[in-house]
Amino acid sequence: MSKNIDIINQHESVVRSYIRNFPTVFTKAKKHKMWDENGKEYLDFFSGAGALNYGHNDDHMKKKLVDYIMSDGITHSLDMASTAKAEFLQKFHDVILKPRELDYKVMFPGPTGTNTVESALKLARKVTGRTDIISFTGGFHGMTIGSLSVTGNSMKRQGAGIPLQNTVTMAYDNYVDHDTLVYLERFLEDKGSGVAIPAAMIVETVQGEGGINAARFEWLQQIEEICRRWGILLIIDDVQAGIGRTGTFFSFEAAGIKPDIVCLSKSLSGYGLPLAVTLIKPELDIWKPGEHNGTFRGNNHAFVTATAALDYWKDDSFEKEIHEKSEIMYNTLQKIVTDYPEIKGEVRGRGFMVGIASEVEGLSAKVTAKCFESGLIMETAGPNDEVFKLFPALNIPKEDLIKGLEIIDESVKHLVKDPVAN
Amino acid sequence: MSKNIDIINQHESVVRSYIRNFPTVFTKAKKHKMWDENGKEYLDFFSGAGALNYGHNDDHMKKKLVDYIMSDGITHSLDMASTAKAEFLQKFHDVILKPRELDYKVMFPGPTGTNTVESALKLARKVTGRTDIISFTGGFHGMTIGSLSVTGNSMKRQGAGIPLQNTVTMAYDNYVDHDTLVYLERFLEDKGSGVAIPAAMIVETVQGEGGINAARFEWLQQIEEICRRWGILLIIDDVQAGIGRTGTFFSFEAAGIKPDIVCLSKSLSGYGLPLAVTLIKPELDIWKPGEHNGTFRGNNHAFVTATAALDYWKDDSFEKEIHEKSEIMYNTLQKIVTDYPEIKGEVRGRGFMVGIASEVEGLSAKVTAKCFESGLIMETAGPNDEVFKLFPALNIPKEDLIKGLEIIDESVKHLVKDPVAN
Amino acid sequence: MSKNIDIINQHESVVRSYIRNFPTVFTKAKKHKMWDENGKEYLDFFSGAGALNYGHNDDHMKKKLVDYIMSDGITHSLDMASTAKAEFLQKFHDVILKPRELDYKVMFPGPTGTNTVESALKLARKVTGRTDIISFTGGFHGMTIGSLSVTGNSMKRQGAGIPLQNTVTMAYDNYVDHDTLVYLERFLEDKGSGVAIPAAMIVETVQGEGGINAARFEWLQQIEEICRRWGILLIIDDVQAGIGRTGTFFSFEAAGIKPDIVCLSKSLSGYGLPLAVTLIKPELDIWKPGEHNGTFRGNNHAFVTATAALDYWKDDSFEKEIHEKSEIMYNTLQKIVTDYPEIKGEVRGRGFMVGIASEVEGLSAKVTAKCFESGLIMETAGPNDEVFKLFPALNIPKEDLIKGLEIIDESVKHLVKDPVAN
Amino acid sequence: MSKNIDIINQHESVVRSYIRNFPTVFTKAKKHKMWDENGKEYLDFFSGAGALNYGHNDDHMKKKLVDYIMSDGITHSLDMASTAKAEFLQKFHDVILKPRELDYKVMFPGPTGTNTVESALKLARKVTGRTDIISFTGGFHGMTIGSLSVTGNSMKRQGAGIPLQNTVTMAYDNYVDHDTLVYLERFLEDKGSGVAIPAAMIVETVQGEGGINAARFEWLQQIEEICRRWGILLIIDDVQAGIGRTGTFFSFEAAGIKPDIVCLSKSLSGYGLPLAVTLIKPELDIWKPGEHNGTFRGNNHAFVTATAALDYWKDDSFEKEIHEKSEIMYNTLQKIVTDYPEIKGEVRGRGFMVGIASEVEGLSAKVTAKCFESGLIMETAGPNDEVFKLFPALNIPKEDLIKGLEIIDESVKHLVKDPVAN
Repeated sequence: MSKNIDIINQHESVVRSYIRNFPTVFTKAKKHKMWDENGKEYLDFFSGAGALNYGHNDDHMKKKLVDYIMSDGITHSLDMASTAKAEFLQKFHDVILKPRELDYKVMFPGPTGTNTVESALKLARKVTGRTDIISFTGGFHGMTIGSLSVTGNSMKRQGAGIPLQNTVTMAYDNYVDHDTLVYLERFLEDKGSGVAIPAAMIVETVQGEGGINAARFEWLQQIEEICRRWGILLIIDDVQAGIGRTGTFFSFEAAGIKPDIVCLSKSLSGYGLPLAVTLIKPELDIWKPGEHNGTFRGNNHAFVTATAALDYWKDDSFEKEIHEKSEIMYNTLQKIVTDYPEIKGEVRGRGFMVGIASEVEGLSAKVTAKCFESGLIMETAGPNDEVFKLFPALNIPKEDLIKGLEIIDESVKHLVKDPVAN
Repeated sequence: MSKNIDIINQHESVVRSYIRNFPTVFTKAKKHKMWDENGKEYLDFFSGAGALNYGHNDDHMKKKLVDYIMSDGITHSLDMASTAKAEFLQKFHDVILKPRELDYKVMFPGPTGTNTVESALKLARKVTGRTDIISFTGGFHGMTIGSLSVTGNSMKRQGAGIPLQNTVTMAYDNYVDHDTLVYLERFLEDKGSGVAIPAAMIVETVQGEGGINAARFEWLQQIEEICRRWGILLIIDDVQAGIGRTGTFFSFEAAGIKPDIVCLSKSLSGYGLPLAVTLIKPELDIWKPGEHNGTFRGNNHAFVTATAALDYWKDDSFEKEIHEKSEIMYNTLQKIVTDYPEIKGEVRGRGFMVGIASEVEGLSAKVTAKCFESGLIMETAGPNDEVFKLFPALNIPKEDLIKGLEIIDESVKHLVKDPVAN
Repeated sequence: MSKNIDIINQHESVVRSYIRNFPTVFTKAKKHKMWDENGKEYLDFFSGAGALNYGHNDDHMKKKLVDYIMSDGITHSLDMASTAKAEFLQKFHDVILKPRELDYKVMFPGPTGTNTVESALKLARKVTGRTDIISFTGGFHGMTIGSLSVTGNSMKRQGAGIPLQNTVTMAYDNYVDHDTLVYLERFLEDKGSGVAIPAAMIVETVQGEGGINAARFEWLQQIEEICRRWGILLIIDDVQAGIGRTGTFFSFEAAGIKPDIVCLSKSLSGYGLPLAVTLIKPELDIWKPGEHNGTFRGNNHAFVTATAALDYWKDDSFEKEIHEKSEIMYNTLQKIVTDYPEIKGEVRGRGFMVGIASEVEGLSAKVTAKCFESGLIMETAGPNDEVFKLFPALNIPKEDLIKGLEIIDESVKHLVKDPVAN
Repeated sequence: MSKNIDIINQHESVVRSYIRNFPTVFTKAKKHKMWDENGKEYLDFFSGAGALNYGHNDDHMKKKLVDYIMSDGITHSLDMASTAKAEFLQKFHDVILKPRELDYKVMFPGPTGTNTVESALKLARKVTGRTDIISFTGGFHGMTIGSLSVTGNSMKRQGAGIPLQNTVTMAYDNYVDHDTLVYLERFLEDKGSGVAIPAAMIVETVQGEGGINAARFEWLQQIEEICRRWGILLIIDDVQAGIGRTGTFFSFEAAGIKPDIVCLSKSLSGYGLPLAVTLIKPELDIWKPGEHNGTFRGNNHAFVTATAALDYWKDDSFEKEIHEKSEIMYNTLQKIVTDYPEIKGEVRGRGFMVGIASEVEGLSAKVTAKCFESGLIMETAGPNDEVFKLFPALNIPKEDLIKGLEIIDESVKHLVKDPVAN
């Protein structure tokens, strides 16, 4: 085995996970490709679980970052003012918020997804004076106690070691049928239901870890309408589905809703560097100075690359490109499901956030393992890892997208032909 | 006012704080100095609240980082294996753990201080099957719900919007007198005390945010002894006091104790980049794969600079240098307290983590404001901001350290002379 | 106004409630009748909210009680042994448990409904090592924090002043439709639902305070089946529906289910004296001695009357009598609903636990007020007090039952005719 | 063995406790004496754990009770008005509250100690809008989740099966030394202590279950003063120490303090019947009607006996009698401690609530067992059952008090002489 794998196995905690599925040592990465220490090349259909929507080490961002470092630009600034930060704020406003008629205030809650979710929950409770948050089945929001309380996965929840409180789980769209909101509303309007009017609902428009479940726009619109009617804040956790992954910068744009609070992280920095923001409607921005803080909320390297990444959104060409390629992806997956009925598959998702859920136990893990052998990296999702999940870089060239899809098709075919051997 | 300040005031959430104390825009930084957009130079006695113990943009680390970026080294790897990670693990073992006869497993819990604290609390509860954590008055551990539950500051706690649970606060060393552990032990041994044997105690050896309170070594040794006797895990939160800040790599070395779990972040990456580790005694490393995870737990830029930073610890010369300079600092502060009895000051802390607590309300804020005018950056600490806190880079040249101390002396003198004008 | 009413208004807390609906002073009561200080006679269709199923001051029980008192029988015995207690235990076993093939252990958890519910929840958590309890919309279980946590009413819940925890509310039968258990099961079987397998479910077979909602036997059987399948304990709270109120001693007999734990109180003593028991399957009886206790768990006066009350259940004649009269009641209510379509009424309940829910806001309160004027006492129920609720003594003579029903019919008629005046 | 003991062992839950220490079957009781089914007579120095301060079956109360029952007086009235209730309220005001210049409103929260404690905690949280309650080491307040959360005993707490929340335990008087309030105040005034200003403190002036710990009056006065200064409500739980047990009707009278809320139960009814009240300063009586309720809050039998019992307090003769006899008791216990240094005893308590704490493990249990043999009933208390506790009826004749004390002296002597045989 590799000496480096040895080192990791010897020194790193057993909590490590992806190294178990992708047992090799990566050294280099560019755009939608990665290379390991043996020089083997991989197509990356994983993209850092959505943190690398623009691929690896994008040249434009790289240049900006190296120039900044070479000029001894300030690296770590807490929430003091820096030029890098001001530039990011201005451009984020000009390129993203203003054209979409959104006037959010930008909070830097610490650089990770769970930081932004925790800040959103705290603010919602502070604004409303209520304690409960409604979250949804299949939701994934993070690993710290506040975020974990609104996360559905039972293995992760048990990791808390304490009862997780002040949250109520409701059924996501299509959980049982199309009527999940009938239940939700009944609980809210009935004064004897045991469910209090919550501070907020926290929703992913497409659930990633939960198994690539895409809510219908109609469902999202109804959620917004219910929130408005009852004075409940609507938090969209766009950590995974945002930054173009579903085809638009924010995942909720196509549904036509305007959340009260939005959580962004993962691909926000563009380069895979830690960065997160919490977007807050101005009238809700009632924090005391420093009431929520964090050491790495001023990660200027990430400001620099994030600012560069916004160039992708200056006009609608990128959206169109994503849309076009996502159709290819979707159609190919549909074909796989049709061609191989043995896998009892269902295509899920929207945009560049798609996958196949298979009712055959263990199949998805086998597909991803087979793909890895063939030089394609892809992960599983869902409570029983029943989904294999395609997360290519949004700017992957069409030919390499097709090449990747062929590897998947071949892997499925291989497994279907010779189930015993696998 | 600066256009960039305008931008920030307009777009960033009111939660921003340090910009209020240091109302200028920083552009460049090197070693122990910073420059704003007007070209004004500052001595940095703040060091990113302890995240920049080696100063800004250290040339050695910078070179390693730029080389890595230029070679398209993998930037974001979740917890897949990368050469950058393996190198960090090996060197951390060789340079830090092995010489200190520590055999911790290294967990990457996400890149911030609150991530490592949350992982430590979760693991302690999982290992022991108990729910309570004992924390201490004046403790600061983070802003997410788990970490906030063990943090003392009432303004921050109220920010949670929910009751914070599963924790018991005990009196830190010297809280009332030297007998705080008599109370603690009585609570533990009395079956009618209402305090259950906890999963863990979480302790800072020197409390930073809490007001630069340094626990006596004897107190820390007794804490360890109590933990051993009752089967309680000892978590040292070394996020702020670690990485040399008190004079040794770990702040607990001089006390001769061996915690069960150690939390490190802030200066770990050396360059101000987000990185954190949770160090775990091997027999406690019982996580399930992926039971705690996080998108940015594989921040390879930070691995590269962190590895380079470890060169500071290859022999004991750095420790000696810190020790020598810390004596200068401590003696100067003692002299200030003696020279200006009007400030009713008390020198606190140890190593490069020192300050003066003043009983004169508002004085510390005035001192830091005056210093800022004079080109020195320094923050306040303590529940009532009653302490001004000196956190220079550990590798600051002696002459600039003295220069900074002179600015402080001048500022105090100025305020004492003309209290009305200030 | 009455001097006694004055005294009460002056000295008793504003929390008092029924005195507001029945503003007179009661002095005497016998069987199904009450008299106030003015000598006015009332038919009692309220029966102490189900605590007086055998009517007031039953002569047989009264004689036993007075004899016991006159002989200086021990009154208060905590859980020391007394002859009165032993006699109750033996007779309860012989007359109630054995014929029904139930072998429960009997716990005396304190003399009120909330005591038995709290003991049941504690035991379920202790036995399973789990923390959550599933309760149901519309459920009412008591006012102490544990019981209140499983109670649905939002006004009562807010009275807690703290978030109520460790419980999950699911939809009771017919809450939205007949499929409520499809949702419940989906939540249990989905590892990503955010709902953990609970320690227990606590269910009323007919919800009294919740608005006289009678679950279908099929629903109850499915609940039992789900509990068995997942190793969840089934607690039936029979405090209000038990002791004959639905036609059988236990309310769950007709559904053919065997709960793991049963809560009884209210009419258990027969005479309106405080008494409660928690019935526990022998294999679950793992309490430590004194782990749950209470000063009034040995209320011997209540043992004496409870023992006497069991004579009602020596053969099946009482059940038959209840059944016959309940048909009269049910049919009359159906006729009222049909005769007065203006009240938009729906008949609810089963046995001697019935009522009419009216969609006309405020109507039920007006009906009960009008009845009170006419000498009939009856209360409202449901989250919006939309139900008027008939709870006559089970042994009320047929002619007085009919007389009471006529008063109700008259009251409704009166209100329908002249809605303005009312 | 007795047939009745057999019945109980066979049918009652293993949670039963006192029957284990007093393994006989009681049939009859009068004043300060009890008889078992074998006709053996016992002196009762236990008094129903404080529920029988006037002894068993007091003739005056008995006559009133039987007359009431014979006249078919209303037995169970919820919180409807009854003459029995009005008479109790008026007399309680005239005999108890008015002469002591107390103007509390009287709430009937359900008939047991835990009911009144739960209502007090709820009201304190409602009034202040805060969630935390400060309770004290050694405190005992009840077995339902709210009351259990403020109870110290770890075995009882573990019986909850869930973490007990929203409470902070502080050191009772003399817990470590006389300075426990220095700690308490420091925690309150320090904004970084992690302890929020609570809704209330709940205190017993003498802790019964906790081991007969009597707080100094000075300590109680300081507690009151701290509560006033910080706007914290002061709840005195007088369930066990009240109704004359310490020599005055309320246990706090001698300390000269005026609590905001007082909890009474146990001996309130005088006859051992379940009854409790929560006394509330008028300005705090902000309940909504029915916001806290309970089936047995109108236990008229108890109103009748409680009213009769108040005759004991019409003048100060009863207080004087208690005082005189308590001196005999206290002096005898002091003599026992002096005469038998082997028991390493300490006399504790005040009034008729006294005991000896012995450092010899298991000794107190042996003393009570030996006394039981000799015809005296007495229980142990304290977290390790290290105290034997004398709770005679307050109206015990001097000669029988002395006789009981002689039995105790003899038992101790016997054990000291022949420790092996015991």
